[in-house]
Amino acid sequence: MTFSVAGFRFAGCAAGIKKAGGLDLGLIVADQPVVAAGVFTRNLVRAAPVDVSIERLGLGRVRAVLANSGNANACTGAAGLAATLASTQATARLLGLEGAQVLPASTGVIGAVLPAEKIEAALPGLVEGLSADAAEDFAKAICTTDRWHKIVRGTVATESGPPASVVGIVKGAGMIHPDLGPAPAQGSGPLHATMLAFFVTDAKADRGALQAALERAVELSFNACSVDGDTSTNDTVLALASGLAGSANETALFEGFLPVCRELAKQMVLDGEGAEHAVEIRVEGLPDDAAARTVAKTVATSLLVKTALFGKDANWGRLLAAAGRAGVAFDPKGASISVAGTCIFEKGTPLGKEVEAVANRGMTERSYGIVMTLGTGPGSFTYLTSDLGHGYVDVNAGYRS
Amino acid sequence: MTFSVAGFRFAGCAAGIKKAGGLDLGLIVADQPVVAAGVFTRNLVRAAPVDVSIERLGLGRVRAVLANSGNANACTGAAGLAATLASTQATARLLGLEGAQVLPASTGVIGAVLPAEKIEAALPGLVEGLSADAAEDFAKAICTTDRWHKIVRGTVATESGPPASVVGIVKGAGMIHPDLGPAPAQGSGPLHATMLAFFVTDAKADRGALQAALERAVELSFNACSVDGDTSTNDTVLALASGLAGSANETALFEGFLPVCRELAKQMVLDGEGAEHAVEIRVEGLPDDAAARTVAKTVATSLLVKTALFGKDANWGRLLAAAGRAGVAFDPKGASISVAGTCIFEKGTPLGKEVEAVANRGMTERSYGIVMTLGTGPGSFTYLTSDLGHGYVDVNAGYRS
Repeated sequence: MTFSVAGFRFAGCAAGIKKAGGLDLGLIVADQPVVAAGVFTRNLVRAAPVDVSIERLGLGRVRAVLANSGNANACTGAAGLAATLASTQATARLLGLEGAQVLPASTGVIGAVLPAEKIEAALPGLVEGLSADAAEDFAKAICTTDRWHKIVRGTVATESGPPASVVGIVKGAGMIHPDLGPAPAQGSGPLHATMLAFFVTDAKADRGALQAALERAVELSFNACSVDGDTSTNDTVLALASGLAGSANETALFEGFLPVCRELAKQMVLDGEGAEHAVEIRVEGLPDDAAARTVAKTVATSLLVKTALFGKDANWGRLLAAAGRAGVAFDPKGASISVAGTCIFEKGTPLGKEVEAVANRGMTERSYGIVMTLGTGPGSFTYLTSDLGHGYVDVNAGYRS
Repeated sequence: MTFSVAGFRFAGCAAGIKKAGGLDLGLIVADQPVVAAGVFTRNLVRAAPVDVSIERLGLGRVRAVLANSGNANACTGAAGLAATLASTQATARLLGLEGAQVLPASTGVIGAVLPAEKIEAALPGLVEGLSADAAEDFAKAICTTDRWHKIVRGTVATESGPPASVVGIVKGAGMIHPDLGPAPAQGSGPLHATMLAFFVTDAKADRGALQAALERAVELSFNACSVDGDTSTNDTVLALASGLAGSANETALFEGFLPVCRELAKQMVLDGEGAEHAVEIRVEGLPDDAAARTVAKTVATSLLVKTALFGKDANWGRLLAAAGRAGVAFDPKGASISVAGTCIFEKGTPLGKEVEAVANRGMTERSYGIVMTLGTGPGSFTYLTSDLGHGYVDVNAGYRS
């Protein structure tokens, strides 16, 4: 399967940024200046490449995205900012562009200045390798602790003619609890590394529609999943639209992007550091979706719930206890809970060890759902989470060593 | 060291409630009806003994506390409530009291009805064992996953004459993120198990002063510590004052209770399930204490921070990133961080690997502090947390098996 989209070329190479070696520098180039949109971490502490991308997105159309893994260029002060500027300017020179047309993104260890000289040395080979068929190389180049690269194709309905294409690429495994918004509150110093996502489409879109569609799709996918409850300082989602296919309005873009975002979010959670399961926590029956979201998020981020998922334990007590501390009113005596398709708790009463044993077997699946019905209201929300086990501790207790 | 307090007798015995055996039923009896106060979990989902204790506290003076481990009597519906009532009434009969003068508290597994018949069978022996010197037996009887029993003595200044005594007893290791308040919002069904704390003093206090002092002391101790971010449904703190020593006003009671509460909270965090370190997260320099509390709590409950503590990694990036997502404004470029007495990040700049290595060595201590100075304001707050490692996963993934 190829992941080409009209108007874009891709490349990935090993620039020696990652200690462990492997692909660590990726490039997306648009044949012409393209419409672009982005959402970024709402963390007060932001890495230099995030600040630079936000500023450049405001200047108009863009031509390229330069992304690296192995170094987040975070908390590196003026030297780090200079390194981000130098590496994107070097890219622009090679491609005959303005520096401001290149959007940077970085992920990896923090506190070390981006090695701009290694990037500059690798750039000629990277540019030479640009190809319409190399999106997977780009996807591989941005991986850090990811166990596999993540790339998904979808379609966008157009006003006339055949549907346009959209390809989404994401990296992310730990520090996954995105809280992305269009307009970060404050400028700031730099930091860590996590979720990067890139979308390219050949739909013809105006910038406002692309931005609005991206924000809406992100809200129901990346902003509704959690591996460890920590929101990174480098979280970045960019979308580029070449306009070589038919026109798409905001609704069409949203509806096209959403399934791609959801599939990428699911893969990201499945690849959660040390995770063995991706679990959809669905909360139903509350007065509105916002209340359901609050409860679903509290359950999805509960350590006791996540360790129970790891232990394959249909522990309705922990589920209900987490829901109970979410700050949303409901009557526990009317609550029902099903796990992996088996109802284990109905209208406030546990249904016993036998059905729990059935549910426990369902929890051996790589992916399953938990439904908590907390009333009779119309509000519902689904939050994606992962289990938390020894793998998570191993990855995160030793990350910098 | 004895933990006797004038006017009280204690006992603990093995009633066969805990699968593993050992002391699991405890009794405190006051010689006369005594003034009592209490704070309880704010979780919407509450266990039956919590509901019963809240109701009985409102009726006036009390004579006894009956506490058990091994069973939280939670999510057990009418049968569970009946079991709590039956066991406290049996206690009252044996002691010649009214049932309403006995406050129940339970901790342990959920979803199983309290075995009232086992308790009733053990009660005669328990009552026979009552002794002024047996507070430690009570402390042992309420332990679940605790690695040691926790009991602390302090003093309360009186208006004239020698100081009064206060003895505090706590159990708790997991599901520790108390959010205790005087008046839970709603009645509810029952649930899990966690932090139980009991204070006995011979100070003479009126009920309003005792309640207010207890609330204030809890707010700065149990409500400012976290093992896993999960607030239990059984959290209960009770204080009984026999009045056999001198009179103490609210301030004297607060100042006497606070160091006892803090020491118990510290022991509880040190005994955090699988924890190897108790770490004080102190946030300074914000506009007010409430803002500092918000940031300190966010840092103290961050999984990435807690796994870094486990890994003995002076990871200022994770600390700063957690602070940055707390929703409180500060300038990361002015932030400074010291770990175990060593400044590793000053005014937005990391100080390098050498000082980090010194801090890493400090992180091998069982107990140390982290100070984050985020500005020049007068607001500060200290939150206690533990590291999170394999032990936590082991305890919680297999708790019910």
